Amino acid sequence: MDTPTRGFPVEEFEARLRRAQSLMATADIDALLLTTHPDIYYFTGFLTRFWESPTRPWFLLVPQSGPPAAVIPSIGAPLMASTWIRDIRTWPAPAPEDDGISLLADTIEELKLERIGIPDGHETHLRVPVGDFARLREGLGKISIAGDQGIVRALRMVKSEAEIAKISYACSIADRAFGRVQQIARPGVSMDEVFRRFQMLCLEEGADWVPYLAGGAGESGYADVISPASSEPLTKGDILMLDTGLVWDGYFCDFDRNFAIGESAAEVSRWHAQLIEATEAGFAAARPGQRASDVFHAMNQLLVSGADGTDSGRLGHGLGIQLTEWPSLMATDHTVLEPGMVLTLEPVLATRDGCILVHEENIVITESGARYLSNPAGLEIMRV
Amino acid sequence: MDTPTRGFPVEEFEARLRRAQSLMATADIDALLLTTHPDIYYFTGFLTRFWESPTRPWFLLVPQSGPPAAVIPSIGAPLMASTWIRDIRTWPAPAPEDDGISLLADTIEELKLERIGIPDGHETHLRVPVGDFARLREGLGKISIAGDQGIVRALRMVKSEAEIAKISYACSIADRAFGRVQQIARPGVSMDEVFRRFQMLCLEEGADWVPYLAGGAGESGYADVISPASSEPLTKGDILMLDTGLVWDGYFCDFDRNFAIGESAAEVSRWHAQLIEATEAGFAAARPGQRASDVFHAMNQLLVSGADGTDSGRLGHGLGIQLTEWPSLMATDHTVLEPGMVLTLEPVLATRDGCILVHEENIVITESGARYLSNPAGLEIMRV
Repeated sequence: MDTPTRGFPVEEFEARLRRAQSLMATADIDALLLTTHPDIYYFTGFLTRFWESPTRPWFLLVPQSGPPAAVIPSIGAPLMASTWIRDIRTWPAPAPEDDGISLLADTIEELKLERIGIPDGHETHLRVPVGDFARLREGLGKISIAGDQGIVRALRMVKSEAEIAKISYACSIADRAFGRVQQIARPGVSMDEVFRRFQMLCLEEGADWVPYLAGGAGESGYADVISPASSEPLTKGDILMLDTGLVWDGYFCDFDRNFAIGESAAEVSRWHAQLIEATEAGFAAARPGQRASDVFHAMNQLLVSGADGTDSGRLGHGLGIQLTEWPSLMATDHTVLEPGMVLTLEPVLATRDGCILVHEENIVITESGARYLSNPAGLEIMRV
Repeated sequence: MDTPTRGFPVEEFEARLRRAQSLMATADIDALLLTTHPDIYYFTGFLTRFWESPTRPWFLLVPQSGPPAAVIPSIGAPLMASTWIRDIRTWPAPAPEDDGISLLADTIEELKLERIGIPDGHETHLRVPVGDFARLREGLGKISIAGDQGIVRALRMVKSEAEIAKISYACSIADRAFGRVQQIARPGVSMDEVFRRFQMLCLEEGADWVPYLAGGAGESGYADVISPASSEPLTKGDILMLDTGLVWDGYFCDFDRNFAIGESAAEVSRWHAQLIEATEAGFAAARPGQRASDVFHAMNQLLVSGADGTDSGRLGHGLGIQLTEWPSLMATDHTVLEPGMVLTLEPVLATRDGCILVHEENIVITESGARYLSNPAGLEIMRV
């Protein structure tokens, strides 16, 4: 696979802005106020790992007409100036007494924005101290701040070709790293060493960074899929699972692979095949016009205990700028699938003794059905 | 340096709880309501990279009397049960219609908590959808939710010996990785390759993961310290800076090193020496009873343009469970230094053509003064 171009052409951001503005007009919202990395990256292309520092708040106003305005700490001015954003207002943060709040309020008033929308629904948060946000609200008087009516969700949930290319490339990096697990995993190697070495493989294969790695090992699977690595050594007969969310140019892949260490019990082949068959059923159901819940049911009917018997609460989800995004593949999520949506298929099987096995692939919805972005695993579990 | 023990003894969490409860009694707060990784890890030891997923909210109630209660998605139950927390209440998240909100409200009522405190000050945020939090408030009726009056800040800002040992070990890993930069950086190697290889070195030397890496390169320094790696190759005469926040057992180091690629202009040695002298002045000033602002001034008077001439806004900060924490080394932060505070000293020098050089070390305040946690750099810039 060729390496995609980093960044996006200005036309892509202009198109995102136009779609946002159209939805804002319908929703009677004057501007979106955005405060998190994924939302600000989506509209600006401002890409930095500095979000790891919680110290400084960052603001982007996306008005119903006219260009976005960034109200940001001065430490971010050079990088923001390298994006397509031209209206950049800065203050010397940190300034705990007034950390951008009056500058943001002044900007809102200058741009004559009266009805502000903020993402307030599922999977969102406001990356601003609660005290500062209360002061902003008080200072704005009659200017209202309410929910964004799902506008940002609707926009980010459907990916462009350029976004899909980045996710696809991230998947190809993880595919290559998974293809080298036999170099790092064998009986006697501790799980934390496997975790460290697997992250190194992801980087060597081209990841910009590896924000997420989870995994587990045991002869019947693992108790959960979120625990950090233990210092326990792998033993012959273990099933090793590694689940990575690596990033390339700001976009995630998110899928896992299971490996039999040396040998495995006879049921393991059956369990693994059952997960793959559930994945394939989900893949077949993931067509435009179908619902997230339809894909869930297609997978769930092939899993003995189904999601009700496990703790993941869903059998897949969206992904993109974040490791997990809307929608959720679960019985109560009736989001209609559209071309451009990128999803994980993530069936979970309860095995025995409270253990589970999880398989995961990444797909994109196209006009004619789903297409795999990860290189799909075969029925038989890989042996290392 | 010996590898510290992972985790903390129960006594450490009991002591943290007692200190929190004492401060809550003074502040007339019935319980803290915590929603973020650092705050929940601090009181529970619940350590997972699953926070990368924004999908599910997590709650911890720390009452003024009695043990903490975790109100969390069921996917986290096995891991939480492995901590010292015994009161664990779960719901099958995601459940966008009621994602833990009524379970949390019921728990608050059952525990008879009437005055809830949430961290609301500088460097905090609430990791809950704004809509959900509004519904929680409405549903609680007369039960009040207000700020925590800085209790969590006061607790987390002063580290225990066990916390300091983890940060110190993270520093030793980064020291070893910086000591191998000559293996990966030379003229012709692109910056993104240097970034990838440096993260691999951090992992190989023992990092659990590398959440943060920033850097830059140029003959007079770099425009900022937050930009991602470019695909530009290093050239002879560049100053390369790498700034890493790597994690070991949930604790960060955060420091940088500058390297001269092959050769460098005569001023570079002078600039670098000036940064080291400023660092040493900050180190000397960082004693119990002195203020964060005193350390700032001690460094600032040795920097030609000082912080007013650059964009970082401060010359160092706290660190621990987060890459950056309170306090800030700046003119307006008068936090009194205490033994156990862990700080970065991070002088910034404006060089020319809009470029800067930044140096950074990590220290801990002890009864008798500061102690370096990073292995302090010499006056002369390292050549690779």
